[in-house]
Amino acid sequence: MILVVNPGSSSIKFQLFETQNTTPISILEGLAERIGIDGNLVMKFQGQKYEWKINMPDHLAAVGEINNRMLELQVIKNKADITGIGFRTVHGGDKFIQPTIINEEVKKVIEANFKLAPLHNPPGLVAINAFEKEFKIPMVAVFDTSFHQTLAPLNYLYPVPYNWYTDHKVRKYGFHGISYEYITTHMSQVLKIDQNKLNLIICHLGNGASMAAIKNGKSLDTSMGFTPLAGLMMGTRSGDIDPSIVQYMVKETGMDVFQITDALNKQSGLFGMSGLSDMRDVTDAVRAGNEQVTLTWKKYCQVVDRYLVDYANQLEGKIDAIVFTAGVGENSKSTRAEIIANAKLLELELDENANHAKYTDYNLISTPKSKYPIYCVRTNEELMICNHTLKLIK
Amino acid sequence: MILVVNPGSSSIKFQLFETQNTTPISILEGLAERIGIDGNLVMKFQGQKYEWKINMPDHLAAVGEINNRMLELQVIKNKADITGIGFRTVHGGDKFIQPTIINEEVKKVIEANFKLAPLHNPPGLVAINAFEKEFKIPMVAVFDTSFHQTLAPLNYLYPVPYNWYTDHKVRKYGFHGISYEYITTHMSQVLKIDQNKLNLIICHLGNGASMAAIKNGKSLDTSMGFTPLAGLMMGTRSGDIDPSIVQYMVKETGMDVFQITDALNKQSGLFGMSGLSDMRDVTDAVRAGNEQVTLTWKKYCQVVDRYLVDYANQLEGKIDAIVFTAGVGENSKSTRAEIIANAKLLELELDENANHAKYTDYNLISTPKSKYPIYCVRTNEELMICNHTLKLIK
Repeated sequence: MILVVNPGSSSIKFQLFETQNTTPISILEGLAERIGIDGNLVMKFQGQKYEWKINMPDHLAAVGEINNRMLELQVIKNKADITGIGFRTVHGGDKFIQPTIINEEVKKVIEANFKLAPLHNPPGLVAINAFEKEFKIPMVAVFDTSFHQTLAPLNYLYPVPYNWYTDHKVRKYGFHGISYEYITTHMSQVLKIDQNKLNLIICHLGNGASMAAIKNGKSLDTSMGFTPLAGLMMGTRSGDIDPSIVQYMVKETGMDVFQITDALNKQSGLFGMSGLSDMRDVTDAVRAGNEQVTLTWKKYCQVVDRYLVDYANQLEGKIDAIVFTAGVGENSKSTRAEIIANAKLLELELDENANHAKYTDYNLISTPKSKYPIYCVRTNEELMICNHTLKLIK
Repeated sequence: MILVVNPGSSSIKFQLFETQNTTPISILEGLAERIGIDGNLVMKFQGQKYEWKINMPDHLAAVGEINNRMLELQVIKNKADITGIGFRTVHGGDKFIQPTIINEEVKKVIEANFKLAPLHNPPGLVAINAFEKEFKIPMVAVFDTSFHQTLAPLNYLYPVPYNWYTDHKVRKYGFHGISYEYITTHMSQVLKIDQNKLNLIICHLGNGASMAAIKNGKSLDTSMGFTPLAGLMMGTRSGDIDPSIVQYMVKETGMDVFQITDALNKQSGLFGMSGLSDMRDVTDAVRAGNEQVTLTWKKYCQVVDRYLVDYANQLEGKIDAIVFTAGVGENSKSTRAEIIANAKLLELELDENANHAKYTDYNLISTPKSKYPIYCVRTNEELMICNHTLKLIK
C-alpha cells in the first residue's frame, strides 16, 4: 500500500492506496487538522466516516495517531503494509524537474526553497520528518512545479532586471503541475493519442486556479508564475495586475507591502469584487440577478478566455482538446458555458445537454461542430503522486 | 494660430500650428529643456534649427523665452496671433471624459489627480499656470486618459478589494488616448468607414507602449492600466507581472516598495532583460546574433501577440484593420514582422516589400490574402490636441 500525504501548517491530508492491481485503488481518505491547537482527526473508510477529537501537539503526534487509528480500524495490519509514502510538495524550485526519493540532500533543497514558498514548504518538511521517524520506509517528494520545468526561457523569464532572476531566482515556476500531469496522462488514454504528440489547453479552475498549454505532452506555458498569486483571477487572489498598484496602496493606506500583498492573496479575486469566494455561491447569486456578482463572474470568465486564446495561439491552433478540471472546472456548468461562449475566436460549440450531464471520470461537452473538443475531467493528484511513488520505490 | 504644449518637470515641448486652412499645419516645433538647471531652448522653423543656451529658472521664465524667441524669429508678430493653447495632460482621472477649457475648477481637478500621476500632473499644472500668466488666452486640457473613459466596468475594474476602487480610485485608466483617438479618426478617413462603425486593434509601440481594442470607434479595452507601468513589456517598464514579486524583492534586497516599483519602471522591460532599451539597438543586436537580446526581443513581441489575440477575441473577429504606430510601431520593420508571424490564430499575411517601403502618413503592409489588413500609421498627437483646442475655443 502507498500512503499519499498533502501537508499543511496545521493539517495533514492523506489517502491510502491499495496497489496490488495495475491501477491503485484509494481505500481510505483522511484529514488530521488543528494540529497544535485542539486536534481533530477524520477518516473515511469503507463508506464510513470516523472522527476523533484528540490532542496532537505536533505533526509527529499526528502521524502517530494516523498510524494508530489505521491499525485500530484494521485498514492495515501493521506498519509494514505500507511500502512507500508520497508527498505533495509545492515548490521544487528549478532543481527538481522530476519526483524524487527523499534523502538528506533532497530535504536540504526543499529547505533552500523555503523563501520561494514560505507558506507551504516549511510545514511540508516538518511532515516529511514526522513520517520518516514513524514509518522508516522509502518516501518520495512529488513537486507541484516539476511539470512546468519544460517551459522555455521565453515563457519563464519576466521582463524585470535580469539579476532578479540570476541572483534572486525570480522567474515563472508555475503550480498545479501534478494535476496537469495527471490530466495529460489521462487524456492521452481517453483520446488514444500518444502523450508525446498530445496538445491540450487545461483549465485547472479551483479556489486556486491556473491554466496550462500542453504541447507534445509537455508544459509549454502556464498562468501561475513566480508564486500562485499570478495569472488568473481566483477565489480570493487577484492574479496579474498593474504591479504599481502595490506601492500606491502602501502610500494610500499606510499598510506595508506584505499586508497589501496579503490582501491580493486573501481579499481579492471573486471575493474582493463581490464578497463571495466560492463559485457555487457566486453562480447562485448570478442566477438570482445580483449585478455586482454577475460583473465579478464575467470578469473571472473573461480572464480565462484571455489565456484560452493566448494558449491556442501559442499552440498555433493545433489543439487535441480543451479540458476543464478542479472544483469549478469539473462542476460549474454555467461558468464553463460562459467561458466557451466568449472564446469567439476558437469557434467552440458547447453541447448543452452534455454540459449538464453527470459524470464520474470525464465527459465530452462539445458538439461535433466545435472546432476543438472540450472535456471536463475529474483530476486526481493523489493517484498521480501514488503512481510516481510506486515507480520510484521499486 | 494654436500652440500645443507637452509639459514635463524640467521641460516644455511645443508645436505651433497655422490654423487658417481646414487642416492645421505645424509651422514650428520647439523644446525648452533643463528648466531650473542650466537652460536650453531649441526651435525648428522653416527648415532651420535655432538653439539658445539661456537661463530659465522656472517654467514662467521658459514661457517668456518661448514667446520672445518666436517674436524674434518673426514666427508671430505679436502674442495675439496665438488664439489658443492646448495642453497634453496625462491624467484626467474619471472626471474628464472629454477635452475641456481650462478654468479654476479644472485646475482643481487636475490637482486632485496628482496622486494618480505624481510624475506628470504636477509639472503639467505648473506649465498651465505659466502660460496662463504670459498669454491670457483660452487654454484647453486634452487628456491622455479621456479616450478610454468608454471602457466598461468589466474592463476597467481590477479583481482586488472593491473598496480599493471606491475609496482609492484603483481602476484601469489607460493612456496614449490622444494617439488612439488620432489613429481612429484618421483610419476612418483612410478606410472610408464611418467612425461609429470602425473596429481596430491599435499597437502604440513607443518607448512607452500600449495597445487598444477599438469597437465602433470607441475604446473597448487597453493594456495600460492604473498607471503606465501596466500591460506590455516596454523599453524600460515590465508591464503586468506577478504582483507578489514586489514584496519578495523588498524582502530580498532591503529596498523599499517605492524603489522596487521604480526599478519596474526604469530598469525593466527590454532594458532589464538585455541592457538595451532602444528598439533600434535591440534589433541591431538581434541581427548581429546576440542570443540574450534575441530572447528579449522575442519576449517583447510575444506579449504584443498575447494582447493581439485577446483583443481580436473581444472584438469577435470583426476587425477593420490592425494598426502599428509610435516610434517602434511606425519604424521597426522586423518587430512588426515578428509580431505578425506569431499571431497564428489571426491568419495574417505580411507583404514583405510593403513592410520595408518608405511612407509619410500611412502604409498598408499586409497582402490581400491577410484575414485582416495591417497598416502602419504615423501618429500625430499634437494635431489631435490642436483640433480639440480649435473646436473648444470657438
